[in-house]
Amino acid sequence: METGWKEVVFSLARDVERTVMPLFGKPEGGKEVGKNVSGDVTKYVDRVAEDIVVERLKPLGINIVSEEIGLIDQGSDLTAVVDPIDGSYNFSSGIPVFALSFALFKGKRPVYSAIYEFLPGNYYEAIPGHGAYLNGRGIHVVPREPEKAAISFYTLGRGLGIIGRVKRIRVLGAIAVEMAYLARGSLQAVVDLRNYVRPTDVLAGTLLVREAGGIVVDESGKEFNPPLSAEEKVNIIASSDERLLKIILEGIRNDTQ
Amino acid sequence: METGWKEVVFSLARDVERTVMPLFGKPEGGKEVGKNVSGDVTKYVDRVAEDIVVERLKPLGINIVSEEIGLIDQGSDLTAVVDPIDGSYNFSSGIPVFALSFALFKGKRPVYSAIYEFLPGNYYEAIPGHGAYLNGRGIHVVPREPEKAAISFYTLGRGLGIIGRVKRIRVLGAIAVEMAYLARGSLQAVVDLRNYVRPTDVLAGTLLVREAGGIVVDESGKEFNPPLSAEEKVNIIASSDERLLKIILEGIRNDTQ
Repeated sequence: METGWKEVVFSLARDVERTVMPLFGKPEGGKEVGKNVSGDVTKYVDRVAEDIVVERLKPLGINIVSEEIGLIDQGSDLTAVVDPIDGSYNFSSGIPVFALSFALFKGKRPVYSAIYEFLPGNYYEAIPGHGAYLNGRGIHVVPREPEKAAISFYTLGRGLGIIGRVKRIRVLGAIAVEMAYLARGSLQAVVDLRNYVRPTDVLAGTLLVREAGGIVVDESGKEFNPPLSAEEKVNIIASSDERLLKIILEGIRNDTQ
Repeated sequence: METGWKEVVFSLARDVERTVMPLFGKPEGGKEVGKNVSGDVTKYVDRVAEDIVVERLKPLGINIVSEEIGLIDQGSDLTAVVDPIDGSYNFSSGIPVFALSFALFKGKRPVYSAIYEFLPGNYYEAIPGHGAYLNGRGIHVVPREPEKAAISFYTLGRGLGIIGRVKRIRVLGAIAVEMAYLARGSLQAVVDLRNYVRPTDVLAGTLLVREAGGIVVDESGKEFNPPLSAEEKVNIIASSDERLLKIILEGIRNDTQ
């Protein structure tokens, strides 16, 4: 357990918050200023936030993988995988669902992760083998009967039969935040089948959900275990429990056959 | 123009905010305390918020239509149609998208509407023939090419072809808020085909979107004009412009044939 990381990441998150929040819902935050390593648009707010992240983490001598720049390899055994603003479309549009997402690895083994949801000021964190926390208090997934479940569901058309099997659908537009909601029991699953999200978006959430008692797999049902990268595009299924996971995987298989 | 209403509604919204915000994301806010007039569950926070609304509006002598109680007929020519907490599942789950929705009618003619988004503290209002406003500044819908548009889309399966025609889908779980986002240009359409929302949820948003330059119709493309009721269940399509509306209506028709 790397106990010093909470202070580093929390203070980093608050620094990013102070700098970017004046841009919340303002068109200048959404201005396109280039392309990132995976070829997507970089918004002004993404760049401003990432500059702070790099400035704060680089002097620590660790490797950094971040959404816009890709990998900064400093030859360390520690790698921080960061999305400075997950949900930057929401941010620049004034939709209050966005967060900083941070996951730290020693080699390929996760050692700490955190998601800071700026607007309500919620700090989610996970320590492998020790649990998941919201503002310092333990959190746990809350399974429900599938027909009473609420799930985040991103699809371009596959698996639509799932919609009729659960009570509520959400598409909030910030998957790190949605995985935090799953970890605290506000959602029962987060599913993204668009081949769209990158490991930077979901690695912190993956540790958080697992430490909160949930399951995270790929679309074939195997353990979700992507590379520490800002470039790969992945599909992901995170669930509070096996029963709901089974329904989701069936919904996908029925479409694929 | 009924200029006095802004003060009444803004102060009412702030009263509700002060009372309910300590319950945000807490299980007690979501506790079921009964059924409302349309047979859905009433949550504790819905009842607390509605009590304040009724207490504040009843002495004004106007009729009140509200989510949980239905109609309070005081024989007035003015009727306030209120959803004290639109998005109460979000509220009780800690998802920061919820609002108070208020629409005032003289007979059947709208005279004022407001949506107060608690967490960012955004006050949206519309005055027929005068425009739509966010915190006192004029707002307008922002049409985009359909392939660049972001839309809120609620369906149980109909019209799914629409998903591939636009860039971004959102399902935020608070339709009054989503209509406010449409009015300010953050979304290009709000579509609900579930036969689920009630006039109380969408009447304020309807006036707001129209005054912001958008279009609000039913699923057949006719002007959306529901009764002032908390009971009917309706479908609704609100769009920033005719071109996107056409694509949405085509997507529905292709499924219905």
